Amino acid sequence: MDVRAAIALEPGKPLIVDTVQLEEPHPGEVLIEIFSTGICHTDAYTLSGKDPEGKFPVILGHEGAGIVRQVGEGVTSVKPGDHVIPVYIPECRQCVMCLSGKTNLCIAIRKTQGEGLMPDGTTRFSYKGKPVFTYMGCSTFANYTVVPEIAVAKINDDAPFSSVCYVGCGVTTGVGSAMWGAKVEPNSTVVVTGLGGVGLNVIQGCRMMGARKIIGVDINPAKAEMARRFGMTDFVNPKEIDNGNLDALRDHLIKMCGGWGADYTFECTGNTQLMDCMLETAHRGWGLACVIGVAAAGEKIGVRPFQLITGRRWIGTAFGHARGRTDTPKIVDMYMNGQIDVDSLITARIPLSEINEAFEMMKRGEGIRTVVDYSL
Amino acid sequence: MDVRAAIALEPGKPLIVDTVQLEEPHPGEVLIEIFSTGICHTDAYTLSGKDPEGKFPVILGHEGAGIVRQVGEGVTSVKPGDHVIPVYIPECRQCVMCLSGKTNLCIAIRKTQGEGLMPDGTTRFSYKGKPVFTYMGCSTFANYTVVPEIAVAKINDDAPFSSVCYVGCGVTTGVGSAMWGAKVEPNSTVVVTGLGGVGLNVIQGCRMMGARKIIGVDINPAKAEMARRFGMTDFVNPKEIDNGNLDALRDHLIKMCGGWGADYTFECTGNTQLMDCMLETAHRGWGLACVIGVAAAGEKIGVRPFQLITGRRWIGTAFGHARGRTDTPKIVDMYMNGQIDVDSLITARIPLSEINEAFEMMKRGEGIRTVVDYSL
Repeated sequence: MDVRAAIALEPGKPLIVDTVQLEEPHPGEVLIEIFSTGICHTDAYTLSGKDPEGKFPVILGHEGAGIVRQVGEGVTSVKPGDHVIPVYIPECRQCVMCLSGKTNLCIAIRKTQGEGLMPDGTTRFSYKGKPVFTYMGCSTFANYTVVPEIAVAKINDDAPFSSVCYVGCGVTTGVGSAMWGAKVEPNSTVVVTGLGGVGLNVIQGCRMMGARKIIGVDINPAKAEMARRFGMTDFVNPKEIDNGNLDALRDHLIKMCGGWGADYTFECTGNTQLMDCMLETAHRGWGLACVIGVAAAGEKIGVRPFQLITGRRWIGTAFGHARGRTDTPKIVDMYMNGQIDVDSLITARIPLSEINEAFEMMKRGEGIRTVVDYSL
Repeated sequence: MDVRAAIALEPGKPLIVDTVQLEEPHPGEVLIEIFSTGICHTDAYTLSGKDPEGKFPVILGHEGAGIVRQVGEGVTSVKPGDHVIPVYIPECRQCVMCLSGKTNLCIAIRKTQGEGLMPDGTTRFSYKGKPVFTYMGCSTFANYTVVPEIAVAKINDDAPFSSVCYVGCGVTTGVGSAMWGAKVEPNSTVVVTGLGGVGLNVIQGCRMMGARKIIGVDINPAKAEMARRFGMTDFVNPKEIDNGNLDALRDHLIKMCGGWGADYTFECTGNTQLMDCMLETAHRGWGLACVIGVAAAGEKIGVRPFQLITGRRWIGTAFGHARGRTDTPKIVDMYMNGQIDVDSLITARIPLSEINEAFEMMKRGEGIRTVVDYSL
């Protein structure tokens, strides 16, 4: 079938908005009509060519929501008409990871997904007769996509696609990191670096979990207003603390948290030096430093092991520890119940034809999240 | 009073065995007759002069056991005649750390202890009229010592001093790391690097907690026999894995654990590169890497943050997360109940006069633990 898509033909070039061909779902696969998709920094990272695992030509996009239109042979968990979010971390419920009950990092289709292929090793998209890779198992920059059944989360039928598409990555990553990753305790102190889409969601996750002090850190003071609406209690601009010296920032934050550090820290920028700083900012004896931001390829984090010996703990999270099919619908429900705010974070809605401008806006740091609505 | 002691007059020199003077306990302090003391690598580290916090002249030793002979004003938790172990991490039960219930790192007397002083800022020991510092709040290389009440753990009266002195550091550090630090789960896989006094105790702790596979790693194959007696199921000599290449060691260990890594790893050598390797050897999704070994001053650990993002967790522990007064007696009881073996680890018992030879033996890697018995 013909579908409308934004194609990344090669790294570093604008996307081509054109018609591509999509095959019917193979056994175990699902055809989804995508109504809305968010545009995330991870898409931009891969498009830039810096992602060592990037494959081209590809249809990017991994924050979509839509309706199941057709299912392949053997699919039982969803049916045509179901409202769904495709999830870039699947949940097979059968592999060692899923069965552990300790991680969301299902490995059932890890290899083929990393190669931009469907589980049977083939592609579904093609453009001018040549195969096009799938991105993060989702490829939501197309108004129809085919994904494996184990990567389809059935959600509340009443949830608006144009908002909950963002649950497919940023919202869940942030809120989930607080709830399921760090398991923030009531009355705790928190530091969050990077007040973008993920950081703001970490903040509202921490507020919901009952944190009493939530310190936001960003070099852009314009980010503070929105962050306060999401639950941030204090704002720190590192540039104003000894010109961005990270040791001074650490000491300042530790002091703000009562002298021994923050119960939880969340690093959402991908800056490895800030990751080190956030480990050192965690409370002596028990502070938990959670890495969320994706670092540039090859970069390392590093501290004196004394920081761990004296009780600080270092963890990371992908997709907020959320199990793709089981937990994504819970975040949608929390939005529908009014427990978390998603709408304020979506600062622009555009037609697919304007997707390249949206990438430029993101690069300039304007807005929080732009959503492509295929109906526009 | 006159007491017999081994005095470290300056770094890098042999200890002087001589008579030193000891003041009576001040208010809140306890005079203990030490019957036995272990000799630990940490004593050697400080004696070498490499410890940036080392103070001289000092009476080293922090693994002692004995009987309370006199208590200062206001002391209520112990009385003369009580059998006790002095603990280098005190437990005041009143500070933010103790009250958290999350850490053993009591801060009540941290500053003065670090300076080699009693809580009131003075010293109790003197030699030829000059003050001598206390070491780690214990100074057990003297047959009498004075310590703060909050650093005295009352133990089972039937426990033999010549064995349970070792509970004051190495045994508790190792067993506690498995029980209270990592909280090892039944049926889990474990890797332990460094089969010395601490590593062997980690192994018996993991065995007690029900681990099914315990892989010991050491460059000295002579360590394997004892480790097997303590519960090690598999031995790996890194020299035999691609000549000690740590990436190869990691891949080898991951394979031995079923392909995704070990549920728990414990680094007991202090080698920071091995600490990194042990983080990478931990299981994708949930593996917990626990740093126990003390690194050389200034050295750092460092990995790609992707290792954390994909679910590995990095922690450290001091004294096996054991609360000084509350948990040390439990380890003594576990020894008395036959749940853990301490006796096999004590490979020599010597009089104080031979203490310098014991340090030389330790440097040469001979034996596990040498104990000074003051009765010899």
